[in-house]
Amino acid sequence: VEHHAVLETCKYLEKYENVDVTYLPVDKNGLVNPESVEKAIRQDTLLITIMYVNNEIGTIQPVKDIEKIAKQHKIAFHTDACQAGSLDLNVGDMLTLNASKIGGPKGAGLLMSKVRLIPLIHGGGQEHNKRSGTENVAAIVGFAKALEIAQSEKESGHVKELQKQLESGLVQLGAQINAKEADRIPITSATFDGIEAESLLLRLSEKGVYAATGSACATKTLEPSHVLLAIGMRPQKAHGTIRLSLSAQSTEADVNQALAVIKESLGNLRKIATVEA
Amino acid sequence: VEHHAVLETCKYLEKYENVDVTYLPVDKNGLVNPESVEKAIRQDTLLITIMYVNNEIGTIQPVKDIEKIAKQHKIAFHTDACQAGSLDLNVGDMLTLNASKIGGPKGAGLLMSKVRLIPLIHGGGQEHNKRSGTENVAAIVGFAKALEIAQSEKESGHVKELQKQLESGLVQLGAQINAKEADRIPITSATFDGIEAESLLLRLSEKGVYAATGSACATKTLEPSHVLLAIGMRPQKAHGTIRLSLSAQSTEADVNQALAVIKESLGNLRKIATVEA
Repeated sequence: VEHHAVLETCKYLEKYENVDVTYLPVDKNGLVNPESVEKAIRQDTLLITIMYVNNEIGTIQPVKDIEKIAKQHKIAFHTDACQAGSLDLNVGDMLTLNASKIGGPKGAGLLMSKVRLIPLIHGGGQEHNKRSGTENVAAIVGFAKALEIAQSEKESGHVKELQKQLESGLVQLGAQINAKEADRIPITSATFDGIEAESLLLRLSEKGVYAATGSACATKTLEPSHVLLAIGMRPQKAHGTIRLSLSAQSTEADVNQALAVIKESLGNLRKIATVEA
Repeated sequence: VEHHAVLETCKYLEKYENVDVTYLPVDKNGLVNPESVEKAIRQDTLLITIMYVNNEIGTIQPVKDIEKIAKQHKIAFHTDACQAGSLDLNVGDMLTLNASKIGGPKGAGLLMSKVRLIPLIHGGGQEHNKRSGTENVAAIVGFAKALEIAQSEKESGHVKELQKQLESGLVQLGAQINAKEADRIPITSATFDGIEAESLLLRLSEKGVYAATGSACATKTLEPSHVLLAIGMRPQKAHGTIRLSLSAQSTEADVNQALAVIKESLGNLRKIATVEA
């Protein structure tokens, strides 16, 4: 269920750096079992990397439990926290986060590291010799502010309440909510039987409701989402799945409006399906 | 004379990737001799990298000649073109350039490559799978515009004329112009005997003349510039060297103003030196 930023890096390490990578399964809520992490540890394990929050279904992983296991075994633990900007970021030996995922400017990212790393990009020794290159100061300042705002929204119950309303509305429209039993951030993954998610998205975007199918990076492929397959969904169902995200700026009116537009679009799509059948 | 972006990368390759790097000397104008490039080629040479234009003394390298040699020997040729935004960029198998060096926004860079490369940064497959990560669209568009402007200023004789005026003025103030006989871009490196360049810079910046000693990346070190040492300058003289850059926006009035401020500052510094002696 990892993002391609981690998956492709693992593939590179396997192909070019002779590194063995163990991929762990997830349950139907997208959760990694900390016990299976512990079981997978080998004598030569150097690094455990588990994403903090999934970008397609919103599942929050038990990163604190996994961190404990890593510590006991003296293995470095990295977490991809790109979707976790509003959660507790004091996690792991290494943590990565990008600005654009929390409303900050593109072009700035964050690496928190308690481990000595060999830099990827060499040169003038900027960023304490960790990442050379003239610093993009404006983007960095914008990122810091965005992170401050995201962190200040940590404990807000408002968005959770809205997510509940959205999801019960979607269920009434025939949707199945994915990873329903997991602790989640306000990302909702909803599957509609017999609906082409792509067609639904087109209709929604025409009316100002911006949803997605898989991750934005994967919009050019027609492959079903690897995340949905990993939680045990059949490809056909994965193609009927949309993703909706709420933010601290979202309102009850937004949710009602989105539900109304989804209801109308579903109605039209089902009518077409009936005619074609 | 290479920038640290290339030098440090070479050091990394030597230290961690078991690569042999041959460093070539330059003459007093900072020029690499194409013949010495050819002589240094070994059976297992994979890459030749020579900077297009030096960032401290402005010397333009004979990159077209070096490219020919590389081609004859079927070796890839890379050039660091960060200072060459206003020159012909149709050079080499790989060429790199960053936006902020040509008046564009920080946070965007360019890699022109005719060679298949393994990416450094893996993930969503952006930039034709060469460099993953959400694209910083605003910076990229700004970079393209800055490059368009820089390229349109290619053949302007105006800046060359200003540089001549600046340099003859500096000589009258007792300076020695470095790499004087080389083909150069409008970067002027001038050495004043018995002057601490750092003190001179402070006085200049107070009056709105922004010069530099070495490269901006090296401002925190007190080491003499590796470029000035490479062209055969003694460390003491290197410490008396400043760098002045002109752009297409510079005017004759700017040059006269800069010369007047430098004259006044030199006078004050020499007075202090006399009192102390």
